[in-house]
Amino acid sequence: MKTLVKNGTILTMETDTPELVQGDLGIDGDAIAFVGKGPSGFSADREIDAAGSIVMPGLINAHTHIAMSLMRHYADDLPFWTWLFDRILPVEENLTDAHVFNGSMLSLVEMIRSGVTSFADMYSNMDAVAEASLQAGLRARLTRGLMFNGPEDLFKLDEGRRFHGDWNGKGDGRIQVDVGPHAIYTCPPEYLEKVVQLAEELDCRIHIHLSESRKEVADSIEAYGKTPIAHAADHRLFSRKTYAAHCVHATDADIQILKDHDVAVINNPASNLKLGNGFAPVVKLLEAGVTVGLGTDGSASNNNLNMFEEVNLAALINKGSTEDPTVVSAYTALQMATINGARALGIDGITGSLRAGKKADLILVDTEVPHFYPRHSVTAGLVYAAQSSDVKTVICNGEPVMQDRVIPHLDEAEVYRKARESAAAITGNAHFMP
Amino acid sequence: MKTLVKNGTILTMETDTPELVQGDLGIDGDAIAFVGKGPSGFSADREIDAAGSIVMPGLINAHTHIAMSLMRHYADDLPFWTWLFDRILPVEENLTDAHVFNGSMLSLVEMIRSGVTSFADMYSNMDAVAEASLQAGLRARLTRGLMFNGPEDLFKLDEGRRFHGDWNGKGDGRIQVDVGPHAIYTCPPEYLEKVVQLAEELDCRIHIHLSESRKEVADSIEAYGKTPIAHAADHRLFSRKTYAAHCVHATDADIQILKDHDVAVINNPASNLKLGNGFAPVVKLLEAGVTVGLGTDGSASNNNLNMFEEVNLAALINKGSTEDPTVVSAYTALQMATINGARALGIDGITGSLRAGKKADLILVDTEVPHFYPRHSVTAGLVYAAQSSDVKTVICNGEPVMQDRVIPHLDEAEVYRKARESAAAITGNAHFMP
Repeated sequence: MKTLVKNGTILTMETDTPELVQGDLGIDGDAIAFVGKGPSGFSADREIDAAGSIVMPGLINAHTHIAMSLMRHYADDLPFWTWLFDRILPVEENLTDAHVFNGSMLSLVEMIRSGVTSFADMYSNMDAVAEASLQAGLRARLTRGLMFNGPEDLFKLDEGRRFHGDWNGKGDGRIQVDVGPHAIYTCPPEYLEKVVQLAEELDCRIHIHLSESRKEVADSIEAYGKTPIAHAADHRLFSRKTYAAHCVHATDADIQILKDHDVAVINNPASNLKLGNGFAPVVKLLEAGVTVGLGTDGSASNNNLNMFEEVNLAALINKGSTEDPTVVSAYTALQMATINGARALGIDGITGSLRAGKKADLILVDTEVPHFYPRHSVTAGLVYAAQSSDVKTVICNGEPVMQDRVIPHLDEAEVYRKARESAAAITGNAHFMP
Repeated sequence: MKTLVKNGTILTMETDTPELVQGDLGIDGDAIAFVGKGPSGFSADREIDAAGSIVMPGLINAHTHIAMSLMRHYADDLPFWTWLFDRILPVEENLTDAHVFNGSMLSLVEMIRSGVTSFADMYSNMDAVAEASLQAGLRARLTRGLMFNGPEDLFKLDEGRRFHGDWNGKGDGRIQVDVGPHAIYTCPPEYLEKVVQLAEELDCRIHIHLSESRKEVADSIEAYGKTPIAHAADHRLFSRKTYAAHCVHATDADIQILKDHDVAVINNPASNLKLGNGFAPVVKLLEAGVTVGLGTDGSASNNNLNMFEEVNLAALINKGSTEDPTVVSAYTALQMATINGARALGIDGITGSLRAGKKADLILVDTEVPHFYPRHSVTAGLVYAAQSSDVKTVICNGEPVMQDRVIPHLDEAEVYRKARESAAAITGNAHFMP
């Protein structure tokens, strides 16, 4: 199947400064055949009109828990530890594969509608997450979240191993599986060692939460005499390629450790703000040369999976918190959401920018909306004004998963209905609308 | 004309905690006839189906410069004083009534599409702003911006007086005119006195920028030995009801002055972040009992007029900057954008909440979108997840200015084209898209 995306304004995200190409983008099977002007022999089976649209790489949501959409708008304006231990974890006790599937499908619809083509997820009941991702058609980097409260939890390592065996490489390579120790406060040192051994055995990456809250850092220093990041480094976690969510309270010494071990940081601005955890030191991380991707976190702490909002926040709040409007330019924020997110997840060889040979993961952003007029700057438009609803068409791995705002292969009303039923079942909560 | 908005989930914003009414809302002429259940004799000429929608007051953008949409995406990632004096002011020299009209219409379309029914604007060429507002059908509180560089600027006071005479009360009372000294760094003390006299003469409110940047505060202390807020109070500015934009660097003593003089503060989170001015002390202002409204500022420093984004930012960044997730709850943020914005502008008697007798200024927010599922909380949904594109129908002063996302009385393509032409004319800038 050959697809021609015609007459677009193409933002490649291939270069250090914005590169715009006016013209066409050709897709052959799952890969980009050309960007700009096609060879004379390229005969398309399918044409997509991109006039008036910005064509850019699909966004990469590099840290989330998609099934948590079931707890969206369920626990708000609460302290982090109350939110997690009193509200979220008890409800999660009630999760089944069916609930996780329903929550995942709701989030996959939301991510497609907002231009995400790749995401990294950590949760339980991961077969259901993987099955939903397969059906939705997105590219996923999945991890079975690992917490250890005692020997009865050792089975989770085996489950992680089994999940990797069952799913890694499925969906024409769209599904990849990593190892996911939840955090150092839920994984004791000797358990962390086992986690690293598993990642070595499976030859995969590690996905973890690090230094999210002040309490996590204080507890770590009390227990181990070290920050969570130094503690993780001590236990060889970073001997495997690691992408670490949050790092809100990374010290200067921590940032050096992250750089030395080539650990990528996934910044989750909305979640960090909403839970009162504060502002990650994004400017310092970038200055140190650390790869920084962007994520939404789960929608129980956000409360959406809107990567356009995260891009906007990344550009805005770093200017506000440093009182320097020149930091985290619009283009830098877009890099975080595309090519640098891909680098963080180790998929920059196949996605995150538009060039011949990469997988065709791309979106069309409609500019026929008031906030894209006048046409002074494409990057400022995308970062400071765009809404996720401007996303018109989404192509992942060469296949349109949304075209002209229609998702052809999913029944959205059914997805909503099932998510609502699952949410009611696990929370027992009454709903505000009939 | 009688209108029945049927079967909605109505968030009245009338009470200190969220009040939801399931049912109908009746409109008789320009006013709300009932909320909930109509009298048996109410026979509607027109019905609007609100099933699946949240019905709530139209949002109030309490500080903006709508014609600045012409400089949207034109000057980004720059220091505040460079942005203002090197980029914006030189371009503003080229403005004509026609350009200001075209920029205003672009912004009015954007505001209608994002659920704004009332706004407060300060700029030049205000006849054009007023004419555009009249045509668009929104409720506007307008001020001719006053700056004084020398005696040649004295005419602006006369223009402000003339503008008030020509426009105050026009459009069935939708247009109200106030007096708008730009800032204390552009209005010397003796000029401020004249401004206060004019506001006394016209018996109107004062709209001003105060304590927006650290430099403004430092310069004021150097010149007058006082903060801008203390200096303004000294010159009797607050003897008139005043709504003051920004107040980012208000000290505790300043906050007491604002409270003592019943000065309302208009918080502009996106603009304050983007220009690197920082975080306004919203939590302290609220604790002190100061009325706090919300605004977008102009789209040259935002870069949109999306009040859903400001509501979201107000709830998020105050949690982040105080590291307390319990402050500025979802409902508090909604109050800032509705009833408290109305209080700030002195229009809470007629708008800002839904109750019989008030003007019918209301919006329908579509919840048939992934981020409004499940239905755990209406306020969390509106604040932490909604997009302005969820706004489906907008009624101002009893008249639908958008219905099912169609703006019946304006030619949007023509509005975009003219704004683009005006932007090119005043900036000389090439555009990124053909």
